Amino acid sequence: MEATRDVRMATGNGENSYAANSRLQEKAILETRPVLRKAIEDVYTLLSARRSTMVVADLGCSSGPNTLLVVSEVMGAIRAFTRNRKQSEERRGVEVQFFLNDLPGNDFNLVFRSLEHYDYLGGGKEAPPYYVAGLPGSYYRKLFPCRSVHLIHSSYSLMWRSKVPEEISNSTHLNEDNIYIGMNTPFVVIKLFQEQFQKDFELFLTLRSKELVSGGRMLLTFIGRKNEDMLTHGEVSTVFELVAKSIRSLVLKGRLEKEKLDSFNLPYYAPSVKEVKELIEKNSLFDIDHIKLFESNWDPQDDSDGNVTLECATSGANVAKCIRAVLEPLIVDHFGEEIIEELFVEYGSIVAEHLEKAKAKYPIIVVSLKKPMH
Amino acid sequence: MEATRDVRMATGNGENSYAANSRLQEKAILETRPVLRKAIEDVYTLLSARRSTMVVADLGCSSGPNTLLVVSEVMGAIRAFTRNRKQSEERRGVEVQFFLNDLPGNDFNLVFRSLEHYDYLGGGKEAPPYYVAGLPGSYYRKLFPCRSVHLIHSSYSLMWRSKVPEEISNSTHLNEDNIYIGMNTPFVVIKLFQEQFQKDFELFLTLRSKELVSGGRMLLTFIGRKNEDMLTHGEVSTVFELVAKSIRSLVLKGRLEKEKLDSFNLPYYAPSVKEVKELIEKNSLFDIDHIKLFESNWDPQDDSDGNVTLECATSGANVAKCIRAVLEPLIVDHFGEEIIEELFVEYGSIVAEHLEKAKAKYPIIVVSLKKPMH
Repeated sequence: MEATRDVRMATGNGENSYAANSRLQEKAILETRPVLRKAIEDVYTLLSARRSTMVVADLGCSSGPNTLLVVSEVMGAIRAFTRNRKQSEERRGVEVQFFLNDLPGNDFNLVFRSLEHYDYLGGGKEAPPYYVAGLPGSYYRKLFPCRSVHLIHSSYSLMWRSKVPEEISNSTHLNEDNIYIGMNTPFVVIKLFQEQFQKDFELFLTLRSKELVSGGRMLLTFIGRKNEDMLTHGEVSTVFELVAKSIRSLVLKGRLEKEKLDSFNLPYYAPSVKEVKELIEKNSLFDIDHIKLFESNWDPQDDSDGNVTLECATSGANVAKCIRAVLEPLIVDHFGEEIIEELFVEYGSIVAEHLEKAKAKYPIIVVSLKKPMH
Repeated sequence: MEATRDVRMATGNGENSYAANSRLQEKAILETRPVLRKAIEDVYTLLSARRSTMVVADLGCSSGPNTLLVVSEVMGAIRAFTRNRKQSEERRGVEVQFFLNDLPGNDFNLVFRSLEHYDYLGGGKEAPPYYVAGLPGSYYRKLFPCRSVHLIHSSYSLMWRSKVPEEISNSTHLNEDNIYIGMNTPFVVIKLFQEQFQKDFELFLTLRSKELVSGGRMLLTFIGRKNEDMLTHGEVSTVFELVAKSIRSLVLKGRLEKEKLDSFNLPYYAPSVKEVKELIEKNSLFDIDHIKLFESNWDPQDDSDGNVTLECATSGANVAKCIRAVLEPLIVDHFGEEIIEELFVEYGSIVAEHLEKAKAKYPIIVVSLKKPMH
């Protein structure tokens, strides 16, 4: 499995599409608004009279309402900044060029067609002109010319790996009955997932550092781990453990071969804040301006703060929709189309059962980085 | 009818898609190769050590094999230039950023997915790195930040107007029995088509002049007219006169209302070289480096030079496929899906009949422009 081709969100805008099931991602964008605003302010001051175009990239943009939400958040931040500080007089010539990046399998047509109805994005006469391009390709390769980008944004994407570690995908090491790190995942397999993350993240930092201008900023939001332990009740591993459990139940019913399950693993890794910090410091291409972890309920429709899930069945169904929108292309490629409905009905009830015991939350890491001036 | 939304080529890559029917456009790109090479050489020398990214835009890129042919032509020109002149030593840091532009309805997904299989595009180790983005939007609006583009290319697109002139689309003036300028088109209607071209082309030049760097180049190829007369046997008007004739035959059979035909006009205008030259000179934003007209057989599969069409029935069918790929979305929007098969079968025989009388060719205008240094 080559993740650079396979990890894509469900296309279109139907009931099971990613577009209709991305409220979780929307919440993260709103949560990180203050950090984004600060980054924009910093970047704005880098613009000279000679080169007054701010280039902004969103990596792993997917296709849905949040894709353009990033554009309007950035434009909103610029507007707020120039209005407050009366910078607009000084920087009349500023223009903003957006690059929305994702893998070539992403539904860019949907994004581009919805742009037509987004005339309000720019937000009034005070805002600078902006232009939106789509950029297909894996962000584990170089995407931009050197020193050409001012701000890189990426939300809910960097927990995806460039690939399943080879020694797992070629069955040198088995991760029996699991699809990600689970309760009985062997230590050596956990290490392989972790090393893949380290390689990918270091490569990501190196590539982006080349593409950013001096003083350029990077705001990354992705699913992480709250504790150094690999497995903590209610965290992200559990979400996938329950997917594995649902697949196992289909194996037990004779609907799938056990070998099919054992040869399926997600190109995924949720790191801890400590792991992320250590890699950035070791790599020493960026200064950490801000790093923090917040939590977001599994059920994207559940905005409550408490520790109890009120409507477990509804929440289970909501989580199932959300995870289906993310995993469907990977699962269909590996297991075929036929089992998808059954699998996610099963998954919905298993999640509901799990939520009865305790409310579950995703830990989300937000990190804001700065490429040093030199 | 708003052309900025409706003029798009048939999507996908099936038998009737634009992708499978764009050999005519391919021929034009090859025909203009020497002019493109010269433009690239000029633009290359504009790059400084500080800003060594060459930005290239293709406007009206459509979706098909030619979309990426432009990329490989430009990369080929750079490679030839740097190899011959040993410039590669001096300009090691050069990178090329492409923007493929078309209306948001264009099938960008098809373009992006075919990019994955285009690894050979760059052509060897000597060639600079390149990056390809898609840019949705009408080129009758600003598409790029000021002074950010080095080379603008547009092939087989600029004969399309931003819209059908209002006094025609609102029926102030009728163009009865025609869909473009035909034998019995009233003089006032011809004038309206012509004025729309003048407005559009002047706007196009003004916008592009803002977007280009000083010394930037623009290479435009589009269908034109060989003579100052509006109608000349075998030229572009005739292609559409024969479409109108095919629609009329459906009206006679009672398959369509005559009003439907009378309210359908193409947002199109094929200018003469003289008209183009005069507008560029009047507008005075660009210097003309090269302007020329060449001819291309109606039948894209017919590469012969003579004045006789050998296989009229085959050629008729080929022309029908080609024109269908271009007009299908406009025709379906106006007349509905039901008549499309019948219409283009009819059209194929009418074209075949026409070709019996004389071989027919499109006049193609190539113009290479330079934004003055200042």
